[in-house]
Amino acid sequence: MIYFDSDYMEGAHPKVMEQLLNTNQEHTVGYGNDPYTQQAKNAIRQACEAPNALVQFLVGGTQTNATVLDALLRRHEGVLCAESAHINVHESGAIEHSGHKVLTLLATDGKVKAEDVDQYIRNFYLDETYEHMVAPGALYITQPTEYGTLYSLAELESLSAVCRSHQIPLYLDGARLGYALASPKADFTLADLARLCDVFYIGGTKCGLLFGEAVVARCPDTLPHFFPLVKQHGALCAKGRIQGVQFLTLFTDKLYEQICHKAVEQASRIRAAFEQKGYRVAIDSPTNQQFFVLPNEVVDRLRQDGVSFEDWGVRGERETTVRFVTSWATTDADVDLLVKKIENEQR
Amino acid sequence: MIYFDSDYMEGAHPKVMEQLLNTNQEHTVGYGNDPYTQQAKNAIRQACEAPNALVQFLVGGTQTNATVLDALLRRHEGVLCAESAHINVHESGAIEHSGHKVLTLLATDGKVKAEDVDQYIRNFYLDETYEHMVAPGALYITQPTEYGTLYSLAELESLSAVCRSHQIPLYLDGARLGYALASPKADFTLADLARLCDVFYIGGTKCGLLFGEAVVARCPDTLPHFFPLVKQHGALCAKGRIQGVQFLTLFTDKLYEQICHKAVEQASRIRAAFEQKGYRVAIDSPTNQQFFVLPNEVVDRLRQDGVSFEDWGVRGERETTVRFVTSWATTDADVDLLVKKIENEQR
Amino acid sequence: MIYFDSDYMEGAHPKVMEQLLNTNQEHTVGYGNDPYTQQAKNAIRQACEAPNALVQFLVGGTQTNATVLDALLRRHEGVLCAESAHINVHESGAIEHSGHKVLTLLATDGKVKAEDVDQYIRNFYLDETYEHMVAPGALYITQPTEYGTLYSLAELESLSAVCRSHQIPLYLDGARLGYALASPKADFTLADLARLCDVFYIGGTKCGLLFGEAVVARCPDTLPHFFPLVKQHGALCAKGRIQGVQFLTLFTDKLYEQICHKAVEQASRIRAAFEQKGYRVAIDSPTNQQFFVLPNEVVDRLRQDGVSFEDWGVRGERETTVRFVTSWATTDADVDLLVKKIENEQR
Amino acid sequence: MIYFDSDYMEGAHPKVMEQLLNTNQEHTVGYGNDPYTQQAKNAIRQACEAPNALVQFLVGGTQTNATVLDALLRRHEGVLCAESAHINVHESGAIEHSGHKVLTLLATDGKVKAEDVDQYIRNFYLDETYEHMVAPGALYITQPTEYGTLYSLAELESLSAVCRSHQIPLYLDGARLGYALASPKADFTLADLARLCDVFYIGGTKCGLLFGEAVVARCPDTLPHFFPLVKQHGALCAKGRIQGVQFLTLFTDKLYEQICHKAVEQASRIRAAFEQKGYRVAIDSPTNQQFFVLPNEVVDRLRQDGVSFEDWGVRGERETTVRFVTSWATTDADVDLLVKKIENEQR
Repeated sequence: MIYFDSDYMEGAHPKVMEQLLNTNQEHTVGYGNDPYTQQAKNAIRQACEAPNALVQFLVGGTQTNATVLDALLRRHEGVLCAESAHINVHESGAIEHSGHKVLTLLATDGKVKAEDVDQYIRNFYLDETYEHMVAPGALYITQPTEYGTLYSLAELESLSAVCRSHQIPLYLDGARLGYALASPKADFTLADLARLCDVFYIGGTKCGLLFGEAVVARCPDTLPHFFPLVKQHGALCAKGRIQGVQFLTLFTDKLYEQICHKAVEQASRIRAAFEQKGYRVAIDSPTNQQFFVLPNEVVDRLRQDGVSFEDWGVRGERETTVRFVTSWATTDADVDLLVKKIENEQR
Repeated sequence: MIYFDSDYMEGAHPKVMEQLLNTNQEHTVGYGNDPYTQQAKNAIRQACEAPNALVQFLVGGTQTNATVLDALLRRHEGVLCAESAHINVHESGAIEHSGHKVLTLLATDGKVKAEDVDQYIRNFYLDETYEHMVAPGALYITQPTEYGTLYSLAELESLSAVCRSHQIPLYLDGARLGYALASPKADFTLADLARLCDVFYIGGTKCGLLFGEAVVARCPDTLPHFFPLVKQHGALCAKGRIQGVQFLTLFTDKLYEQICHKAVEQASRIRAAFEQKGYRVAIDSPTNQQFFVLPNEVVDRLRQDGVSFEDWGVRGERETTVRFVTSWATTDADVDLLVKKIENEQR
Repeated sequence: MIYFDSDYMEGAHPKVMEQLLNTNQEHTVGYGNDPYTQQAKNAIRQACEAPNALVQFLVGGTQTNATVLDALLRRHEGVLCAESAHINVHESGAIEHSGHKVLTLLATDGKVKAEDVDQYIRNFYLDETYEHMVAPGALYITQPTEYGTLYSLAELESLSAVCRSHQIPLYLDGARLGYALASPKADFTLADLARLCDVFYIGGTKCGLLFGEAVVARCPDTLPHFFPLVKQHGALCAKGRIQGVQFLTLFTDKLYEQICHKAVEQASRIRAAFEQKGYRVAIDSPTNQQFFVLPNEVVDRLRQDGVSFEDWGVRGERETTVRFVTSWATTDADVDLLVKKIENEQR
Repeated sequence: MIYFDSDYMEGAHPKVMEQLLNTNQEHTVGYGNDPYTQQAKNAIRQACEAPNALVQFLVGGTQTNATVLDALLRRHEGVLCAESAHINVHESGAIEHSGHKVLTLLATDGKVKAEDVDQYIRNFYLDETYEHMVAPGALYITQPTEYGTLYSLAELESLSAVCRSHQIPLYLDGARLGYALASPKADFTLADLARLCDVFYIGGTKCGLLFGEAVVARCPDTLPHFFPLVKQHGALCAKGRIQGVQFLTLFTDKLYEQICHKAVEQASRIRAAFEQKGYRVAIDSPTNQQFFVLPNEVVDRLRQDGVSFEDWGVRGERETTVRFVTSWATTDADVDLLVKKIENEQR
């Protein structure tokens, strides 16, 4: 069996496991006050060129989104996002659990437009009844999006400028951020994100760790009293150093870049193979998730042949959109094998 | 330096790490639907003699308490507990974040009495204005308590009977449950807890795991729709199998019993040493946490001498109450050394 | 000045004021346990042909929606409604404040279709990731809708049947219900609503009272422990009898029917006058709200001429959609005057 | 029957009803933007000598407390108050519904001491684990307290100073504030309260109105975005002018002072009568609530004799603490009659 179904199906990158093992018997203080966590935070600050940034490790993405947005939004405010945003669709109402409305914008391939954000906010305050409505209090975007697509640096600059002009924070969900940064289409750096976003998080769970997400806020004042809020949201690990050790490894010798880069390359090879056979690319994604429209018989044959991947939406009558995902755990051998299988398909 | 400050200051038990490493490259489905998680759940069901129990793994204790109580309580209900209860003191208002009041009872050494619970509930419904007050909707206890003390089987039977007579669930927080079960004073088993509590959790973080708590409900109907609620609380791990592998290791060959048993024995040795020198035991704890009242010069000397332990409350003028904690990571050599240091103290 | 801008711009119907005055000095118990409240509840039960119904008086519409939906929804559930629904647009996030997501359906003139509800729920449970999503836990509709339109009896029967087939409650917001019941197009009665809805409320604020909404649930078990929840939501009036006296007056000698009937008739006359002059009806409303597309010069001339009414949305370049509303307080003289002004308009 | 059971058992003061009637047919805009509401706000600003104050009318006390505290507290903060505080006991968890813990202080006759508040906050930040605990984010007091007692000006000055030294707002619940201001023991004015409290409310429901509470914040910045929050809490009246007219009447020609003054005088007469007969005063209250310890036969005889009053707590074996309450609606004739009955009691 060769697997391309998702990027959180194995444990952690071997180097991460190695460091967890190396440090396992050491005795450190809890709740992230240990030296590993401090070093990891510094490594991230350095990578972000944000020496004063607040960095806080949390466990998972939904939790991170709920905690950060609860910190950013005032009581009467909601969060703007694409209709397809993870917080709107796949978080079981975690944002609403903390009392906030999710305000949706139309989006294309998971991306919102700066002008739509601007228009929404302008129209909001033009409405005479706006004080009876939920005020847009933050903008949430994902990079890469749920569809693997990317905001360009120019687009991020525009979104950031719009948010600042309306004095609302820009928050970027980076669950798969490594695959964005490693994309050949990426014209932005971590430092750009730290500069343009008020808060963002660097996803670890889908990029080589057992678990862990690193929240980064260039100005710590953006997230005042964040620690007790993290605790209140049940997001504080007693053994905080487990996240510290993992993130420190990830940000040592550019492991993060390296493993994500490789996964994106592998994804490109898979795409090239499908394209060469004339299959339709469903979404033009330059990251580790690839989407194709395949005839059902191809879908079925590949699966019978030991290839694991997911349908994207409902199976069609003759064709189905499918998703292939790579990760640090994908081997070149598996990609070779998949490419060969694709090449052998009869059109 | 020898450490007796807490039981969550190292990584995981070596066997747990070994199994994480052994399974690291395997590809499994996410969110706890993998075979390891299923096996771990079955192992726990078996240990609890509760073949139909709902078992769900969460990440940490605060999160677990918030999620379970949110599932158990109706909107207008609060949770009864000791004034010293973790949910009342040290969870940054996580219970209130979900909209529920914590209703406190006077307690002795962290333990509430069945008759006090009964009296509270009876008085509540005798009050003519009770519909303007927060109804007691569940009882929360900790085993061992925050002070290391234990409820006996008879006490648990009484608490369970009171709760059932008033038709409210009994929920037991077992963050350190292993050390309770391993205590020489324990006259109850996991099966007793599963029988007497409506819901309880078996703590992993403080008993040998990197992280993880196992919620057990003998009747799954007690926690309907628990999965989306876990997700909503940000408590669902994408790589759920990490918890599965860890708990499976803990419940294989009685590792859980064995490592907790040893820690409690070590704690007894420390207590014996202090008692023999005539120092006062502050709380009569039969588990892995021991509390002593020591002259400040002894406190200071031990620390200068490389022994790490915590003050319990505020430092007194001449004496201070201190806490010594053991865990799976405590070595016999360290205990030997501590005992020798205590014996060498001049009274 | 003659006013057609809304139906909550005066005090209460004179008979209501009279009864408040008559009973003003009487001494009764608080919180709705007085005889007037009991009589009012019975009058409503009778009008609804629901002798065992739970009836509870609240203060305003937003509060009522938030309290009822908080009672109906489980933690992980959201409420389905039209995108234009009051709870989605104009309640400042009151539903989310209690932790619930508002799940929107496309709607026409404010009305949702039974088949769309059915489809939504079916699709929801077909989605493999549905346990990560907010489950539809109730259906909210308004009668008349925010656009003055009505669900027919057949449509209500269908919506009710769909809800029952999926075992979710149907909740009807009747802020202006009197104007629905009084419409010539109404083919349903209060008893029909009580039979088909699990919970609905009879709006008082917009139908002749100073304030007050009457929640009705045919089976009291639908809203268990509703009283403390009303209190928790800050919706319980100390002087509950003020609502009791008002609703009792409204449901004595069919005052409710009579005043709403008259207002709807007046609205029809206004519509007829505009139609006769060839102006376009924007929404085909058979209730007390009427919507027209008028040339801007007509809009301006009417206003300069002392007629007060609201733009409905943004003013257009040449034409604007406007709303005319009648109520118990609208006099025939004012309608005569308006009709004359319309007739005098030059096309 | 003569009634002394509570102060919210009749309608509104006749002058209030008269003004409601006089203005009933007038057409004004909704949601408190009408001229009456504006005039009422100005009258209150003037009475408070706080020309820039934010004044907002809400409906009831529980709602007001929940809304104001939700506005004042950050997410991780709770509210300090006396254990006997209304928000802690009799609001069905309304504060917790918005996600905040109620932090209790020991109190005497319902009053907290400035030094206890100071000590609590100091100790809080001395605790090394304070970031795992709920931070004290506001102080809530009642004036008069639930026991009818008063804070003196000096005590209010101290509480205010302590709050300012710790940078937390002081919030005063004035459900019965009129009876405090009218007390012979009152050495403070409305202006003092406006100066010393960050926010307080002037209760209308228990002081002559049908309903209505007036929130006052000397600096509007203390309650930013308060309007949408009021709406979110379901506390905004469509016919806001009903509150405006009522409060305007109450603050015209010192009606508020006058009616409360009279009620307090009547209460003093009742107290004098009981004291003269040698009955024990249970709580030394200088306001409209009086508490006595009476032999059960006296309690029973008075009730059989047509006097209505409440037990305060549980009926004792031989004696019971009872409460007598006066209000604007209490007539001198009724007080005369009661005094006579007391005088006729055989000791």
